[in-house]
Amino acid sequence: MDYKIALIPGDGIGPEIVREAKKVLDKVCEKYGHSFSYSEVLLGGASIDVHGVPLTDEAIATAKSSDAVLMGSIGGDAKTSPWYKLEPSKRPEAGLLAIRKALNLFANLRPAYLYNELRKACPLRDEIIGDGFDMIIVRELTGGLYFGERQTIEENGVKKAIDTLSYNENEIRRIAIKAFEIARKRRNKVTSVDKANVLDSSRLWRKVVEEVAKDYPDVTLEHMLVDNCAMQLVRDPKQFDVILTENMFGDILSDEASMVTGSIGMLSSASLNETKFGLYEPSHGSAPDIAGQDKANPIATILSAAMMLRFSLDMDKEADAVEAAVQKVLTEGYRTGDIMSEGCKLVGTKEMGDLIAAAL
Amino acid sequence: MDYKIALIPGDGIGPEIVREAKKVLDKVCEKYGHSFSYSEVLLGGASIDVHGVPLTDEAIATAKSSDAVLMGSIGGDAKTSPWYKLEPSKRPEAGLLAIRKALNLFANLRPAYLYNELRKACPLRDEIIGDGFDMIIVRELTGGLYFGERQTIEENGVKKAIDTLSYNENEIRRIAIKAFEIARKRRNKVTSVDKANVLDSSRLWRKVVEEVAKDYPDVTLEHMLVDNCAMQLVRDPKQFDVILTENMFGDILSDEASMVTGSIGMLSSASLNETKFGLYEPSHGSAPDIAGQDKANPIATILSAAMMLRFSLDMDKEADAVEAAVQKVLTEGYRTGDIMSEGCKLVGTKEMGDLIAAAL
Ligand SMILES: CC(C)[C@H](C(=O)O)[C@@H](O)C(=O)O
Ligand SMILES: CC(C)[C@H](C(=O)O)[C@@H](O)C(=O)O
Repeated sequence: MDYKIALIPGDGIGPEIVREAKKVLDKVCEKYGHSFSYSEVLLGGASIDVHGVPLTDEAIATAKSSDAVLMGSIGGDAKTSPWYKLEPSKRPEAGLLAIRKALNLFANLRPAYLYNELRKACPLRDEIIGDGFDMIIVRELTGGLYFGERQTIEENGVKKAIDTLSYNENEIRRIAIKAFEIARKRRNKVTSVDKANVLDSSRLWRKVVEEVAKDYPDVTLEHMLVDNCAMQLVRDPKQFDVILTENMFGDILSDEASMVTGSIGMLSSASLNETKFGLYEPSHGSAPDIAGQDKANPIATILSAAMMLRFSLDMDKEADAVEAAVQKVLTEGYRTGDIMSEGCKLVGTKEMGDLIAAAL
Repeated sequence: MDYKIALIPGDGIGPEIVREAKKVLDKVCEKYGHSFSYSEVLLGGASIDVHGVPLTDEAIATAKSSDAVLMGSIGGDAKTSPWYKLEPSKRPEAGLLAIRKALNLFANLRPAYLYNELRKACPLRDEIIGDGFDMIIVRELTGGLYFGERQTIEENGVKKAIDTLSYNENEIRRIAIKAFEIARKRRNKVTSVDKANVLDSSRLWRKVVEEVAKDYPDVTLEHMLVDNCAMQLVRDPKQFDVILTENMFGDILSDEASMVTGSIGMLSSASLNETKFGLYEPSHGSAPDIAGQDKANPIATILSAAMMLRFSLDMDKEADAVEAAVQKVLTEGYRTGDIMSEGCKLVGTKEMGDLIAAAL
C-alpha cells in the first residue's frame, strides 16, 4: 500500500531518533511490499529557527494531507536556548499545542508498561512490581486548562492571571468512548480520574463517563480522585488497566506513570482524532544535553512508528513485527545508555536502529 | 501558659486519633506546666449529622476564638455513606474547603519524610532511598481552581462546565515568602512548581516567586514543571528540600510525595494564615474502613499536635519532646498495623498513644 507520512524531526535528540524510526519503516516497506512517501514538517525550535514561529500554516497543511505524522520531540533547554527568550506563545511548546488543536487530536494514548528486561531500572521495589504492570493512559488533549481562555489583568495596581478549565459533554463523551473501546481490547477496566469533590468540570466529567459506561457493560468503571491516583500509581500500579482523564491531570499522571515503569526511553504515544489519522511521538522529551551524540534511545520512537502502523495504516501484522523486533533486540541484551545494566551490550542510537531493522 | 485549642474530631478514624493526640497534649501540659482548654468543633460528616451542613458559622466562630485548631480527618466512603447523596456543596469535603477559606489558611505545609525505621515500607528501591529524604511541600490553600468561579451552563442543548484558576500577585507573594522562610531553616533550597509553558497563572507565579527570591540570596531557587516534578518525586526524591506550589498541583504532588515516603500514617500537616494561628491535621484521610476498631495510627495526628505547639504556641521545647517521644517508641519497635513489619511489636491506636505519652 502507498501512504503519505509527515515526519517531524523537531529539536534536541528528535532528528536522530526519527531517523532510526524511518530506517525501521523502510525495512517494513521492503519486507511487506508497501511504499511510504515522506514529507518533512518543521515544528518547535526547528520551525522558529527557519520561520520565526513554532508552527506555520504550511506545516499544518502538509500534516493534514498525510495519512499520519511521526514526530521526534520538541523544545530545548529553557535556561540556555534563545527560543526561551521569546514570549510564551512563540516558544517551541506552543507549536506542539497548536498542532494538536489544528489537527483536532483530542485523544492522547500513552501506554506505561514495564519491560521485563528492564525490571531493575524500575524505581519500585520488586514486591510492588510483582508480575509487572501494563496500563494505558487515555488523556483528553484539546480541552481543559490548556485551551481555555486566559488573561492577565490589573486590579488596583495588582496583577492577576486567569486560566479557564472547561469541558462540554461532547468533548468528554468522545474521549470516554475511546477509553472504553481500548479497555475492551485489554483487561476491561477503566479508571476515570477527576477531582469531582472540588471541580464542576469534574462533576460533568463523571456524569458523562457514567453514561458512556452503560454502553460497555463488559467493562468495569471506577472513579478515582486525582490526588489518590497520584498515590496509587506509586503504591500499586498493577491495579490499573486504562486510566481515563482530562488534559492537565493526564499530563501529570502520564509522566508519573512512565517514570514509575523505569522504561521511559521505551514508551510510545499516539494522539488521535475522530478518523484514522494520528500523530505519534515518544513519551520522553528532547533531551538537549545528549543531542547529536548518538546516545539517545530510539526505541520509544520506533514503537511509536509501530503504533502508527497499527492505528493509522491498518497494518497490525507489520506493527506486531516491529514490536517483536524490539523485543528480540532487548532479549539479546542490547541496550542504549539510559537502559544499560550489567552484563548487557551498550550500543548507540544508530546501532540500535540497525539492530531492530535487521531483526525484522 | 494558658491556651484555647479547638478540636475537630471529624469522621472515620478522626475521633480516635484526636483522642490520642489530646492524651499526649495533656501530658505536655502536666510536664511543662501549661494549661490548655479545649472546645470541640463539628466539621464534615459529623456536622452534617447534627446540623445538616458540613460547617456552621458557630463552628467557625469557635475556631476563630481559639489559638489553634487540631483536626482528625473528615469524609466517608463515597460509595456507601449517605453524605454523598447530598449535592457536592453540602458534602463533608465542602466543609473543609469552607473552613480553610473562612480562617484564611493560605499556607499548607506538608512534610514528606522517610522514617529510617520504616525504610522497608517505602515503595522505592534502596538505591533510590539512599540516605533517606526529607522534603516539605508548601501548598497555596485558598486560591486557584479550588476557589475560582465555577458554573455549569447549557449551550445549544449541550452541558458545559467551567472552573476558573486565578492568582494575583499578593496571593503568590505571601505563600512564596512562607516557602523561602521555611527553606532558610532547612537546606536553603526552594523548588517552585508550575506549568508556565501553558498557563498564564503559572507565568505570573514564576515572576512573583523570582521577585521574592531576590530577598533570599542565601536560598537557591529552581523552577520545575509540574509534570516533571511528578516524575522527579519517584526518580529522585532526595533532590527536594522545599517544594512551593499552587493549590491543585500541591494537592496532587503532596499526596504523591507522602506515598513515596511509605510513611503516610506518620505525616503531619499545618495550614496557616498570616498570624500564628493554624489548623493542624494528619496528611492521611479518614479511613472509614477501619474506623472505631483501635487500628488507626495516631502518630500523624500526634506529630500535627507537635507542629501546633511549635508554630502556633511558640513551644519549641515541647514540640521537640513530642517528636522525640514518637522517635523513641518507634526505636523500641512499637508499630500500628499500617507500619508493621517483622520483629516489631503490634499495638493498637490507644496503646500507641499511651506509649508516646509515657515516653514524654
Ligand atoms: C510540552 C508540553 C506543552 C506538553 C504538555 O504539557 O502537554 C508535554 O508535557 C506533553 O505531555 O506532551
Ligand atoms: C478533601 C479535599 C477537598 C482536600 C483537597 O483536595 O484539598 C484533600 O485532598 C486535601 O489535600 O486536604
